[in-house]
Amino acid sequence: MTGRRSAAPADAAKRAVATAAAGLVADGMVVGLGSGSTAELMVAALGERVRDGLRLAGAVPTSERTAAAARARGIPLTTLDAHPVVDLTLDGADEVAAGTLDLIKGLGGALLREKIVAAASRLLVVMVDESKLVDRLGRRTPVPVEAVPFAWPVVAAALQRLGARAVRRRVGADGTPFVTDEGNAIADADFGAIADPGRLERDIRLVTGVIDCGLFVGRTGLLLVGGADGVRRVTPA
Amino acid sequence: MTGRRSAAPADAAKRAVATAAAGLVADGMVVGLGSGSTAELMVAALGERVRDGLRLAGAVPTSERTAAAARARGIPLTTLDAHPVVDLTLDGADEVAAGTLDLIKGLGGALLREKIVAAASRLLVVMVDESKLVDRLGRRTPVPVEAVPFAWPVVAAALQRLGARAVRRRVGADGTPFVTDEGNAIADADFGAIADPGRLERDIRLVTGVIDCGLFVGRTGLLLVGGADGVRRVTPA
Repeated sequence: MTGRRSAAPADAAKRAVATAAAGLVADGMVVGLGSGSTAELMVAALGERVRDGLRLAGAVPTSERTAAAARARGIPLTTLDAHPVVDLTLDGADEVAAGTLDLIKGLGGALLREKIVAAASRLLVVMVDESKLVDRLGRRTPVPVEAVPFAWPVVAAALQRLGARAVRRRVGADGTPFVTDEGNAIADADFGAIADPGRLERDIRLVTGVIDCGLFVGRTGLLLVGGADGVRRVTPA
Repeated sequence: MTGRRSAAPADAAKRAVATAAAGLVADGMVVGLGSGSTAELMVAALGERVRDGLRLAGAVPTSERTAAAARARGIPLTTLDAHPVVDLTLDGADEVAAGTLDLIKGLGGALLREKIVAAASRLLVVMVDESKLVDRLGRRTPVPVEAVPFAWPVVAAALQRLGARAVRRRVGADGTPFVTDEGNAIADADFGAIADPGRLERDIRLVTGVIDCGLFVGRTGLLLVGGADGVRRVTPA
């Protein structure tokens, strides 16, 4: 019972922040749709607004799973080919640094498309509950690194040279290597508390065989934090 | 007839440089096998040495095509998983800068695996004929950029911001988008003569959606140049 009692407020907070985020969307916008549990609640809330008459230019999903959820809710999908500039992207995060609003994302495995859509966006809005806020990134969460499978041993060695205390290749439910929507591998690299996330993001991205990583530094335009008292809006310091 | 007369010396030069490169391989080595026409001549020469008794720890091919050629020549293949450190990689290039020995590679579409194997190698040996030597990279050859297909419009715009005068998506013989062995797209980005190849390589690799590019800066350990007078050995200035 304790488990259910403590879970319920977190669910309510996620739902509140997802609804608030969906409320930011205006007629005619190209919207980026994040991935993960909060993003799916946002897709549901956005679907209700579309049913109530909101007219989108189109939505760019960041995963096959989000694409399926959006289709099921009647949200019109588009692509970066058709709309290279996205007005507003709404996405979750695994950790958010208080102050800078830098992020770790990608525990769900969709970091690459999430980062590409964020890069194409005028504004990235991040939705979290209070439990995701941290003083320093990396203490609780490893940095997911998307890598070319062929390069795996080279990438693992390079991440250790960059300071990772442990590098694990992510596996799926069946124990075989996890494969992203783009056909790549994910390394979960435990760096502990990260002193300079911007520098680490750049250094990881410059490793041969790395495609991108789950550090999102300097990209968040607005943070929505769901808590017991409602939804707080935070802009970067 | 003129065409055949002028082609013959270039073919002889390629064959001479390929044979000289294969001659650098010693018993027990892990060898990286490049891709392209000169690399295929090298694979043939290496196959002869294996038939004559050379014992390799294994060879890591940089493309499906090179893997097939090596198999047909009786060269034992291995992987980076089995051998994360490669003793010696033998590869061609599309352009080589005199002096620095920086390269443009990837007109054949195998740049990503070529770069990963080069990064795993103690020594990268590059085989070219005289026609590939230039004073400045980029004047004749575009820089191939391997990119996530989903990110295409974002990548094309970013390459233009980095100074590309033209960015073309490479197509195959049938006119549809070219797909690399890893399932990615290739952009051929024309930067003209490149003032600072190291900086451009880094900037391109930091574009979201880019996996890697065909600039190989500071990686060549030994250059073999085939010409009318035989094979010249050049080390970086």
